[in-house]
Amino acid sequence: MAEKDTSVLTAQETFGEDPVVGVGLMADDARQAARGLARAPRAWKDRALLLMAQRIEERSDVILEANGKDLERGRQNDISPALLDRLKLDPARIKGLAEALRELAALPDPVGTIVRGQTLANGLRMRQMRVPMGVVGVIYEARPNVTVDIAGIAVKSGNAAMLRGGSAALESNRALVGILRDALADAKLPVDSVQTVDDYGRDGANALMGARGKVDVLVPRGGRGLIQAVVKNATVPVIETGEGNVHVFIDESADPQMAEKIAVNSKTHRTSACNSAETLLLHSKSEAGKQVLAALDKAGVKLHVDERAAELLPPGSDHLQATEEDWETEYLGMEMAVKVVDSLDEALDHIVKYSTGHTESIVTNNLANAERFTAENDSAAVMVNASTRFTDGGEFGLGAEVGISTQKMHARGPMGLEELTTTKWVVQGDGHVRS
Amino acid sequence: MAEKDTSVLTAQETFGEDPVVGVGLMADDARQAARGLARAPRAWKDRALLLMAQRIEERSDVILEANGKDLERGRQNDISPALLDRLKLDPARIKGLAEALRELAALPDPVGTIVRGQTLANGLRMRQMRVPMGVVGVIYEARPNVTVDIAGIAVKSGNAAMLRGGSAALESNRALVGILRDALADAKLPVDSVQTVDDYGRDGANALMGARGKVDVLVPRGGRGLIQAVVKNATVPVIETGEGNVHVFIDESADPQMAEKIAVNSKTHRTSACNSAETLLLHSKSEAGKQVLAALDKAGVKLHVDERAAELLPPGSDHLQATEEDWETEYLGMEMAVKVVDSLDEALDHIVKYSTGHTESIVTNNLANAERFTAENDSAAVMVNASTRFTDGGEFGLGAEVGISTQKMHARGPMGLEELTTTKWVVQGDGHVRS
Repeated sequence: MAEKDTSVLTAQETFGEDPVVGVGLMADDARQAARGLARAPRAWKDRALLLMAQRIEERSDVILEANGKDLERGRQNDISPALLDRLKLDPARIKGLAEALRELAALPDPVGTIVRGQTLANGLRMRQMRVPMGVVGVIYEARPNVTVDIAGIAVKSGNAAMLRGGSAALESNRALVGILRDALADAKLPVDSVQTVDDYGRDGANALMGARGKVDVLVPRGGRGLIQAVVKNATVPVIETGEGNVHVFIDESADPQMAEKIAVNSKTHRTSACNSAETLLLHSKSEAGKQVLAALDKAGVKLHVDERAAELLPPGSDHLQATEEDWETEYLGMEMAVKVVDSLDEALDHIVKYSTGHTESIVTNNLANAERFTAENDSAAVMVNASTRFTDGGEFGLGAEVGISTQKMHARGPMGLEELTTTKWVVQGDGHVRS
Repeated sequence: MAEKDTSVLTAQETFGEDPVVGVGLMADDARQAARGLARAPRAWKDRALLLMAQRIEERSDVILEANGKDLERGRQNDISPALLDRLKLDPARIKGLAEALRELAALPDPVGTIVRGQTLANGLRMRQMRVPMGVVGVIYEARPNVTVDIAGIAVKSGNAAMLRGGSAALESNRALVGILRDALADAKLPVDSVQTVDDYGRDGANALMGARGKVDVLVPRGGRGLIQAVVKNATVPVIETGEGNVHVFIDESADPQMAEKIAVNSKTHRTSACNSAETLLLHSKSEAGKQVLAALDKAGVKLHVDERAAELLPPGSDHLQATEEDWETEYLGMEMAVKVVDSLDEALDHIVKYSTGHTESIVTNNLANAERFTAENDSAAVMVNASTRFTDGGEFGLGAEVGISTQKMHARGPMGLEELTTTKWVVQGDGHVRS
């Protein structure tokens, strides 16, 4: 084995045919790497990120060649133009990958931050300190940019990453992971800080979900089907991300111009994003209703309306009658459900019933209603007079994000570097014992 | 139903025979209660806690009568004297329950704390605010004091609690929960903030574990068997607590007096506690070895020693030869495994291999070794020159605790009020949209 370059061996050649055994061995290597990475000061990690960026740019031909094979196979398999576009890399996008790593290098390092600390009455000195989680697994769809983003975020926060990208991006991800590992070696950091289990295919994903005790946390990043499958099957602790049945409520006192602007932006700015609005709730006494629906219609949004909302539609609009299913649907496209409500309470009850806990926004000029809306909605982010599209790590000023957590444990909302850390209590005494 | 006092109905009479349906309905009630509790200011919650304390003292005869029935049934079922003692209440212990609630009332309320906040370049004002988790499930063993502790911690942190105590404490828990609910009603807080699923027995526990989406977090509190069963079977997110294979390492430079004091205190101060030491690692060049082992032997600890440690034992000591199993064993009694190591690295490797990630302590006068020991141990708490028994919410100055988390997600180490909260982003704009 010694004379072979392991970066060109498949996982099966290195770790054996059995995916559970193989992924287990990879996780052991990841644990060793994580022990080294946890002690690496920020400067070393940043140097590795900058080297990763440089190597990606230098070897863009290798990446494009691999990506070309994926695209060719994708076309043969008739995957949709939208998926092909997400899979596709070009020189500009490769530059974007490198830039994202350089931006990560510029962000502060959460590791070593003292969260709380004090000297107790008995003289014990205590510090609660941020430390890396250890080994982080991420399961995502065929987007090569996620491979680089996640690897960068993991290394910066001191974690070893075990990646499972969609099989449609197999060649692209293999090329990228190889380059990232070479950069880690050049930076004298453990190469097993970044590994992919893609060679094991679906079995590799399943093995990753079952590696309890070996993998500290698993983040599924993708559509609803992927996330629910991981939540259901994983024994490793999971952080749910990204399901967004997002609501905008136009209150009685809403300024019609502002209501129009926020509703249209929340819905149409990027319909495939999880923070895009899916249901519009209109106060029956609001003067904004007709104007907002006309603007949405003009923007090309197909509206699914209840009976009272239908009366507010512009003549000739492209609409459907809303059914129970519409209140639950995350369209992720140019469609929106619309319901007229008679009070803030009715709006809140609707949201509590149908929300996935991602983001909700109220447009209002009533202070008491703004307070109640933010207090009584049980979602990761609640907005007053702002587009739901702002729920985003970059927009929140947190830097890069692993995903947007819609669960309450550990992380809620955009997950950045800090959310990939845990804490440790360090206690210093002088022979202290309990009496 | 209207004329009946529901506090004397069984869960089956109120919610039906099917435990999954019944626990689901109880969880819906808990969710409603949690919505009310989340908006209750600190003063209301503290008043409820003080009323709970008062009612428990006033109705101690009811509690003692119920507890007497549990004790009688326990004796008939031949449960061990240790378990009977944990089950038993007396006037002094009831006073202790009330006092614990009064201490909780005096602690600060984490709800509403702003964790981070800023005004972004575009003028958006953002606050990350602590909010209650919502509905918290706790599964524990037959200890009536846990019923009161957990209910108090849940109410103070704005959460509704769904409790499942051991069946041996059925009557005691029913009496206590009835009194706590009466106090909530007196304090004008939702009575369903505290409920027990005990009437459904084991099926109730299983239903609680499966109530994903209805229960926000589940905390198992008890022995290894209970915790592992919950981790394995629950679909609700779980926080693991309390497994402690705790190590004390006596380094080469350790002061022998201090080493003796810390080893004996860590092992013998309260052997049934999860923060008690189970394995002693002795540096082969330490002068403290003989003195420490003699002190442990004199204190009545049965030592499980490796070959080199055997040579340091006092003549006539009660000992056994250590096997691989001893390094993994949480004795929770007057027994301890002892191994001689030749270096800090060997000690760290042993701990990384066998630790459950609870607490480890080093006794040393070497600064570099102290730093490495605290940095390279991946445990919730790492001590320098202090007894492992200090890993405790009360000792850490955090107040009451739900348990000691040994996992990395969400909470690590003693879990107090703050650990039963999550955060929410509140974003305030003036018509902000993304461009």
